[in-house]
Amino acid sequence: MSSTFGTLFRATTFGESHCKGVGVVVDGCPANLELSEADIQPQLSRRRPGQSDISTPRNEADQVTIFSGTEFGKTLGTPIMLLVHNRDQRPQDYGEMSRVPRPSHADYTYQMKYDNRASSGGGRSSARETIGRVAAGAIADKWLKHTFGVEIVAWVSQVGTIAAPEIDRSRISRSDVDAHIIRCPHAETAERMQHLVEEVLAAKDSTGGVVSCVCRNVPVGLGEPVFDKLEAKLAQAMLSLPATKGFDIGSGFAGTSLRGSQHNDPFVRKGQRLGTSSNNSGGVQGGISNSEDIYFRVAFKPVATIGLPQETVDFDGNSTTLEAKGRHDPCVVPRAVAIVESMAALVLMDLALRQRARQAY
Amino acid sequence: MSSTFGTLFRATTFGESHCKGVGVVVDGCPANLELSEADIQPQLSRRRPGQSDISTPRNEADQVTIFSGTEFGKTLGTPIMLLVHNRDQRPQDYGEMSRVPRPSHADYTYQMKYDNRASSGGGRSSARETIGRVAAGAIADKWLKHTFGVEIVAWVSQVGTIAAPEIDRSRISRSDVDAHIIRCPHAETAERMQHLVEEVLAAKDSTGGVVSCVCRNVPVGLGEPVFDKLEAKLAQAMLSLPATKGFDIGSGFAGTSLRGSQHNDPFVRKGQRLGTSSNNSGGVQGGISNSEDIYFRVAFKPVATIGLPQETVDFDGNSTTLEAKGRHDPCVVPRAVAIVESMAALVLMDLALRQRARQAY
Amino acid sequence: MSSTFGTLFRATTFGESHCKGVGVVVDGCPANLELSEADIQPQLSRRRPGQSDISTPRNEADQVTIFSGTEFGKTLGTPIMLLVHNRDQRPQDYGEMSRVPRPSHADYTYQMKYDNRASSGGGRSSARETIGRVAAGAIADKWLKHTFGVEIVAWVSQVGTIAAPEIDRSRISRSDVDAHIIRCPHAETAERMQHLVEEVLAAKDSTGGVVSCVCRNVPVGLGEPVFDKLEAKLAQAMLSLPATKGFDIGSGFAGTSLRGSQHNDPFVRKGQRLGTSSNNSGGVQGGISNSEDIYFRVAFKPVATIGLPQETVDFDGNSTTLEAKGRHDPCVVPRAVAIVESMAALVLMDLALRQRARQAY
Amino acid sequence: MSSTFGTLFRATTFGESHCKGVGVVVDGCPANLELSEADIQPQLSRRRPGQSDISTPRNEADQVTIFSGTEFGKTLGTPIMLLVHNRDQRPQDYGEMSRVPRPSHADYTYQMKYDNRASSGGGRSSARETIGRVAAGAIADKWLKHTFGVEIVAWVSQVGTIAAPEIDRSRISRSDVDAHIIRCPHAETAERMQHLVEEVLAAKDSTGGVVSCVCRNVPVGLGEPVFDKLEAKLAQAMLSLPATKGFDIGSGFAGTSLRGSQHNDPFVRKGQRLGTSSNNSGGVQGGISNSEDIYFRVAFKPVATIGLPQETVDFDGNSTTLEAKGRHDPCVVPRAVAIVESMAALVLMDLALRQRARQAY
Repeated sequence: MSSTFGTLFRATTFGESHCKGVGVVVDGCPANLELSEADIQPQLSRRRPGQSDISTPRNEADQVTIFSGTEFGKTLGTPIMLLVHNRDQRPQDYGEMSRVPRPSHADYTYQMKYDNRASSGGGRSSARETIGRVAAGAIADKWLKHTFGVEIVAWVSQVGTIAAPEIDRSRISRSDVDAHIIRCPHAETAERMQHLVEEVLAAKDSTGGVVSCVCRNVPVGLGEPVFDKLEAKLAQAMLSLPATKGFDIGSGFAGTSLRGSQHNDPFVRKGQRLGTSSNNSGGVQGGISNSEDIYFRVAFKPVATIGLPQETVDFDGNSTTLEAKGRHDPCVVPRAVAIVESMAALVLMDLALRQRARQAY
Repeated sequence: MSSTFGTLFRATTFGESHCKGVGVVVDGCPANLELSEADIQPQLSRRRPGQSDISTPRNEADQVTIFSGTEFGKTLGTPIMLLVHNRDQRPQDYGEMSRVPRPSHADYTYQMKYDNRASSGGGRSSARETIGRVAAGAIADKWLKHTFGVEIVAWVSQVGTIAAPEIDRSRISRSDVDAHIIRCPHAETAERMQHLVEEVLAAKDSTGGVVSCVCRNVPVGLGEPVFDKLEAKLAQAMLSLPATKGFDIGSGFAGTSLRGSQHNDPFVRKGQRLGTSSNNSGGVQGGISNSEDIYFRVAFKPVATIGLPQETVDFDGNSTTLEAKGRHDPCVVPRAVAIVESMAALVLMDLALRQRARQAY
Repeated sequence: MSSTFGTLFRATTFGESHCKGVGVVVDGCPANLELSEADIQPQLSRRRPGQSDISTPRNEADQVTIFSGTEFGKTLGTPIMLLVHNRDQRPQDYGEMSRVPRPSHADYTYQMKYDNRASSGGGRSSARETIGRVAAGAIADKWLKHTFGVEIVAWVSQVGTIAAPEIDRSRISRSDVDAHIIRCPHAETAERMQHLVEEVLAAKDSTGGVVSCVCRNVPVGLGEPVFDKLEAKLAQAMLSLPATKGFDIGSGFAGTSLRGSQHNDPFVRKGQRLGTSSNNSGGVQGGISNSEDIYFRVAFKPVATIGLPQETVDFDGNSTTLEAKGRHDPCVVPRAVAIVESMAALVLMDLALRQRARQAY
Repeated sequence: MSSTFGTLFRATTFGESHCKGVGVVVDGCPANLELSEADIQPQLSRRRPGQSDISTPRNEADQVTIFSGTEFGKTLGTPIMLLVHNRDQRPQDYGEMSRVPRPSHADYTYQMKYDNRASSGGGRSSARETIGRVAAGAIADKWLKHTFGVEIVAWVSQVGTIAAPEIDRSRISRSDVDAHIIRCPHAETAERMQHLVEEVLAAKDSTGGVVSCVCRNVPVGLGEPVFDKLEAKLAQAMLSLPATKGFDIGSGFAGTSLRGSQHNDPFVRKGQRLGTSSNNSGGVQGGISNSEDIYFRVAFKPVATIGLPQETVDFDGNSTTLEAKGRHDPCVVPRAVAIVESMAALVLMDLALRQRARQAY
């Protein structure tokens, strides 16, 4: 296990889907930040399942409690423990799942790595683990906004084969994104995405998608060359999320087809500072933020749990057919929006503190 | 700066393009691995510039010396310092470059972050920094091969708009890759790529590309959920390389269009172990290797240094035209192949040692 | 804050004296260790206040709950969160203490460092913070005993000016230590120590003392030269405890007066392995355990909270007299015994896992 | 191996006594610090052997070269590699030492840990390893002096049974210390110490001693509770040095005999800030500097290499007599003075940068 993320601002998550609860210890938050549960709950609510017909119907309240690290509504500079109780705390009986590793789930690899695994719900590989990330990210998000005016907004830019047209990254807000339950801010595309998800759900199947994210007002200078470059930490953060298969920043994979003369971002004067007239760099040059908007994309594979029967083998290698019971979430990207924002916030706040240590000289 | 990578197998690189030298300290290599400069030099030679007409003509010998950590041809278990001297050790006079940050280079961001920067050659943002990574990676590569039979092979799968057809990942070798200087193992595509690079070079321009990589015979169980998942560390490793803009693993971005029923990898019996009949997962499930081939792609942007004139501004915001003098490397991906392999080796060896600590129980 | 200890076996503590609770997240414990609250509670009970007339009378139950990381009585290999609720969860009104930093407490330094501090009870500098350490240490203690037969026993070897005679380190057990409430296994000395503590208590004063500790059956090879030598990590662990002012190992400060010919530990054959005929080294040579008993001492200063009036100044520099109200613990060393053992266990288990990563090669 | 020390200011040392060289990579030094070899050489010269008749006669020049990380006499903010070549770079033939582990040396434990070891000179357990520490420490020392006016001065306070009287810590300077080759600033005691060392040398024996150290003008607020308290990191730093067996700070072990009413340090007004009228705390309360002088002591055992014959056994358990040939250093504490100062500087600078990250908020 490696459940801690960050160098100066550190989040340590804990909890399985069916233990007593899940949560996070946030160490390194500066003192005197105003903080209450009300700052954290909204992102948790955006993350939780059961928000709509097309999401999994388990309505877990996911109420967060600040257990330590604040007093009289302000952070003390000490570890902040955030706890969310699980409703269903009983591990289920060892049933079929204990004998048959679910295809493209983590059952097999956890079993091989640990010679044990949570008997139900996926344990630490469950999406429920991300509650701790989102709770910690909400603190970072508040600090970044308060300190620099940073705005982090993610949205669904692709579901299955349906991709949204270019979004105006300079203006998009979280309320724009939340206007439609699919969390694609382009209304007409959102409708088509919803129809696709409904169709997939009816077919007992699932679909993948892409979440895009922009971080505005990030100060120049964040990112620690060479191994903790800003894009490197973002990439780690995003690929540490369940079901992710890819990350690109700025021009990304598409930019590989361009020529340098098309791709280079010329410098221009922007008020008292330099900026660039284009932004193929995605706000990062040499691993360091350049004060332009940071934007990136995260690829999510189709949800592995499907209602359709699957031919596979059990742990002993015997052929069997697996069929998921009950309802499931056919597409995670609408819920992933808050998770992607949270991980971006964790990365940026940690790098901001690391840069401030340097600037203070 | 954050110049150390790894938890148990740790590489700490140092050196700018025009200081006395570049290199790496490798800490945590197990003792009694046979090791000499001859194990390290080949990958450095594949990385170095000047290998062909289409690469930059600076022929730096890049001869590596093992300074510490071995005796009588075996590792002692102590830090291994590997050193490569720079030939041109004089920082150049502050000239035009000191006044004009090169577009899409790190001049501006380094200056803003550090309030100083290497006066020539890009300092730590130079591709020369990767020498330390490749030297360290060669040690990891040898250990992985010796311990598990791991084979790591990267190749050029795209240059500009020219993409290679699917390569047989189960068979491709480094010598297949090196058969053509462009390092694309599909001969006919390699020819077309070379023509494109020559054309770009003639046009004083540059192009981007994609490097693909496969890691075979990786044992099951590597990867530390949740923040140090195998794909998360690979993503960090690759996005920490100069000029990279994207990473995907397994089905990657393309897989987002699929349905779960198409994408899931059914388990099958493979000899004494379980395997999967397809491999959209890219050898990783739940952040942990599943013993199938690990494969991923890395996007490289077009080289920022071009001979064409560029309209930009100097540090004071005054308009100017920048024109790179001398020859330059119009496409880095052929040289990046060894670098991508090296970073993959660093990731896998560190995770292998971390897993062995657990298994020993 | 730096609330995480360890590289592979990592304990992250949280909680102030008057927040909702205190506890720890233990990451990196191997899977399949049998673990229940009953393994953890005994050391917490040895640590807690109110065990006797000479200890502080607050009888906090300190009941621990395993929140995550186990299932069906075994560890999953995932983070284990251990929680102890605080009984008195209301921060007290800002009273005299908010204006007057208590001499030799952490009020002043926390306020200067964080520009904020817990309004009562010392916050993170409270002895209550050590609950998380003891809970984590109990897990390490069990694993070490189970895996190697390691026995860690600490005892009170000095209270004020009263020092115990040499104890037979090879035989002493925790039950020997607990035979007397002062936790000095030399009965006659324990009586004298108790009288001293009673006298000090009656005088509204406090006293310091020394805790000694032995670790038996530690395998050869633990300790990571050069910065994480075994004695270096033990020293850090012990000096991170509240009220500690010194650490020495083996011959320690007394050994500085000896000559090399007296101090060197000659090697002798001990069954199938080498041992030493004397043990001035304290079980460590070159930072690495040599399989002899590890033993060390930890100096605890007199408790800073005393009933006697103290002349001091408030935060504004105005003279005032401070007088602690209520009863207080006049000597912490009897309770510190379990804490010292726990920190030793955290150090040894982490180093054992790190060594196993190497040996697996 | 664990050859890296520090979180933001990081020193990674490398090199054995008989490899090509020893040195350090310093990562995280802020940019624009004026730095040349002349800043580093003096402390290396105070550390090196052969400074006097009573030291080992090997006169190694130990000339340091700055290999990277500076340009035009200033730091770039990038890794600074400092290199010292070894004169005798040939590992000696496997002789008696390969069969007989030297008592109280690291031969046996290295062999058992790594299943290999440097064939001569002690490898990484050699005092020569400290060259990298001293070189890195000289940078930290300069930065601390330049930024805060910090003064770090260590001296020999005990040799064998001869202890110096109390030294005025508020005034003592490095030149006071260097006035006598024994590096005890109390002239009469220094003479007696020298006679003892000469006597021990003549007897082919060795002696231990104590180095004391004071750090003045350290700003309030340094130290990261709870595991990286200032005294905890100092303790780790000092116990990571070869031949150390103990550390205490402030009143230390002696303070355990006192009562709280004697030991507590009352606050008083000192100009615009609070100070304390006594300093039993040693400048640290709750793990955080309080702006009073930090002072501590480090115990060094007698040198293990002695000319007297020693009865011991070889690796196979066969009895033998070992007799060190050639001259040796009968007492390391005069040379250890610069090493202790350097480790203190590494600790303080790292904690200063960590605190500045927080204060910048």
